[in-house]
Amino acid sequence: MREYSGLLTDLYELTMAAGYFQTGFDGRATFELFIRQLPAHRNYLVVAGLEQALDFLEHVDFNAEEIEYLRRHPIFAKIRSDFFDYLRKFRFSGDVWAMPEGTIAFPGEPVMRVTAPIAEAQLLETYLLATLSYSTMIASKAARIYTAAQGRQVVDFSARRAHGAAASLLCARASVVGGCTGTSNTLAGELYGVDTYGTQAHSWIMAHENESEAFGHFLDTFPAGATLLVDTYNVRNAVNTIIAMDRKPAGIRLDSGDLCADSRWARHKLDRAGWKDVKIFASGDLDEYKIASLLRRGARIDAFGVGTALGAPGDAPHLNLIYKLVEVERRGEIREAAKFSSAKVTYPGRKQVLRYSNSRGEYVNDRIALEDEPRNGGEPLLIQVMRDGRRIGPNEPLAALRDRCVASLRHLPKKYLQLARSAKYSVSYSRRLKQMLEQVRRRVQHSAVK
Amino acid sequence: MREYSGLLTDLYELTMAAGYFQTGFDGRATFELFIRQLPAHRNYLVVAGLEQALDFLEHVDFNAEEIEYLRRHPIFAKIRSDFFDYLRKFRFSGDVWAMPEGTIAFPGEPVMRVTAPIAEAQLLETYLLATLSYSTMIASKAARIYTAAQGRQVVDFSARRAHGAAASLLCARASVVGGCTGTSNTLAGELYGVDTYGTQAHSWIMAHENESEAFGHFLDTFPAGATLLVDTYNVRNAVNTIIAMDRKPAGIRLDSGDLCADSRWARHKLDRAGWKDVKIFASGDLDEYKIASLLRRGARIDAFGVGTALGAPGDAPHLNLIYKLVEVERRGEIREAAKFSSAKVTYPGRKQVLRYSNSRGEYVNDRIALEDEPRNGGEPLLIQVMRDGRRIGPNEPLAALRDRCVASLRHLPKKYLQLARSAKYSVSYSRRLKQMLEQVRRRVQHSAVK
Repeated sequence: MREYSGLLTDLYELTMAAGYFQTGFDGRATFELFIRQLPAHRNYLVVAGLEQALDFLEHVDFNAEEIEYLRRHPIFAKIRSDFFDYLRKFRFSGDVWAMPEGTIAFPGEPVMRVTAPIAEAQLLETYLLATLSYSTMIASKAARIYTAAQGRQVVDFSARRAHGAAASLLCARASVVGGCTGTSNTLAGELYGVDTYGTQAHSWIMAHENESEAFGHFLDTFPAGATLLVDTYNVRNAVNTIIAMDRKPAGIRLDSGDLCADSRWARHKLDRAGWKDVKIFASGDLDEYKIASLLRRGARIDAFGVGTALGAPGDAPHLNLIYKLVEVERRGEIREAAKFSSAKVTYPGRKQVLRYSNSRGEYVNDRIALEDEPRNGGEPLLIQVMRDGRRIGPNEPLAALRDRCVASLRHLPKKYLQLARSAKYSVSYSRRLKQMLEQVRRRVQHSAVK
Repeated sequence: MREYSGLLTDLYELTMAAGYFQTGFDGRATFELFIRQLPAHRNYLVVAGLEQALDFLEHVDFNAEEIEYLRRHPIFAKIRSDFFDYLRKFRFSGDVWAMPEGTIAFPGEPVMRVTAPIAEAQLLETYLLATLSYSTMIASKAARIYTAAQGRQVVDFSARRAHGAAASLLCARASVVGGCTGTSNTLAGELYGVDTYGTQAHSWIMAHENESEAFGHFLDTFPAGATLLVDTYNVRNAVNTIIAMDRKPAGIRLDSGDLCADSRWARHKLDRAGWKDVKIFASGDLDEYKIASLLRRGARIDAFGVGTALGAPGDAPHLNLIYKLVEVERRGEIREAAKFSSAKVTYPGRKQVLRYSNSRGEYVNDRIALEDEPRNGGEPLLIQVMRDGRRIGPNEPLAALRDRCVASLRHLPKKYLQLARSAKYSVSYSRRLKQMLEQVRRRVQHSAVK
């Protein structure tokens, strides 16, 4: 796959681009990305994926084979050949505002705003939605797991459960944005500089004559950093074997069975052996609910590995970000756009999100306003990140994104951090936005009747 | 991301590989990939992702930067430098048997079997699991949607809902293996040669003065192939507008509202206008349940676009394929391996899956046997696809994979095709396998007591 291929899009983006091109519709349009409703079990989102989105915007183009593919596509049979010349020279030239990664966001709030010639802005919809939806979904899940672990390490173990290898990299990165300490994903370690962790699998134990040989060989290889997997046959026998060998490992890992009882028993045994610094690592279909329950019941676990629940969260398996036209320029005139199907109103106009905190720094409410409205002490969450198709400033280090998320979680009132659905965080629309919505409604009704 | 990077793996695969290398454990091992249990709502799986898996096995290696990354990793601080020489020359040299893509599979049945020097076979676990799990999950979902659509076209619309752009390509491909007709994903069209479909978005309508201008411009651009989106403001007004324009489109698309009532109403109106060949396309959060219900209630829909349900299926959001050691050679001796934690028995030995059909060609039952057992008329499902790290034969065309799936669905007794959970398809283990399991159990118990 060519990473920055312009064909990474739904065909309808290209048919619409051809339509705009061929009918001479070249005004600038503004689209905003947001979600209408939180998924079940979520009280907030943690924004992630911006770096990948901007990389794409900065590099996307069409190569000769891709243009040839489109030329031969039956749907483009009657398209004028200057459209293909347009694609040959295609570069994104627009402006982008976005919430920095690690920011907490709520429904209705634009997490990104794109202003560009309408065909360009339209073409990039599919990629932006895919990238921001997935990373934001994972960072939001990771923040819940981070919260449930109460300061203990959480490591992303989802490489085998994510939706293919490329998704596993995005997942590892977004997990760290949301508060994880690191990942088992080695390439994510190399690419993003996150810490990587690795122990051993059941197959290592099974391939050896018995556990003492398996443990011994691993300790021979990693005298300082061996975490030994103790649940292949029987946890207690395995821990006794290790203690009897009198070779202290860095840690042990429990991957099945009664993690609460086994961790308490193992902690006691390890302490009695004088091995208070041997860490107990737990994994095996864990998620925020199981981690919270384990800690509530007194499990003695130092770090958690979380796989499936991070890579493909079962309780909220998709995040339906949408990309809506809010303003379009045509024949020199700016016109706001909105949508009015029954329960699905989309507010028009270029927006800013303002966050208000109390004197203790706690978030109190957000207000969605037009971009030029007075802020009245609110913190603007959308920052310009791209001008004329070029990034403004370098990428932030991943550690800074994680710090932003962790700090934001501290500013969020406790009730929103619970795992169950809480009352909604207050998000309102400004009076000017509401007035603009009504103006657009009247105009659309008028033209529909025409 | 480097597509065939050896770092696309969990770090523990690399620590184990280092352990095998450094302790001189170089025997050949056999691992098998299978699932223990079907996800909720599934009666069968459709295998997919083999081509991607074999591509990776044939090309995986470590480049200089990747080796340098590992060298500097704290966990490898004490590893002998000849391990890094080993990685520098690393190529997969093993043999692989697999079920061809489009084959129907059941729990316990190996969908792939890998035999290679143990460190190699271990290193590739993560990638094989990620790739085969995801594609098989999607093809299995697609087959349900294909079945529910009763011969009508189903098009993958998930590009924006899949877990990032790379996952969207795998999803488009696996959707076609499972019976979809094509995809909206343009790059998937170019890469895999599948048909791509595109209409127009609500933003196209909203950007224009009114619907008649929007429809007119699209018809000007695509006189032969325009499918017009009619639900932006009001479906019936939009259909009336199109008919009043007297410019016949190729189709109309409904994306919200009462798809059953609106499609029936629109069919009637289009037919009365003499436009019996104008197709009605439906989309908007569809899945196999909604499609079945629409058709049961008499909806007049010719084709379905399915997005989220294909890219990130909510009813079974992950498929937990596992990769288990079943045999290992050491010091010239072959030893079968099995696992015996409480409810999680893994059968030892290199296996074959035999499928038995009745005289009408209907599948009756499967038997999992050792690879050299007599077949007694059963069809062997595992085929050798790789020898000494090289593929045997070229990739099959995607259309052939889809044909295999569609034919297999016809051979599957009707009760397994229902959307709800049915009785289990009969899969048994051969007597020799059961005997071998007991032998291994005795040996493991003996060595555990030692």
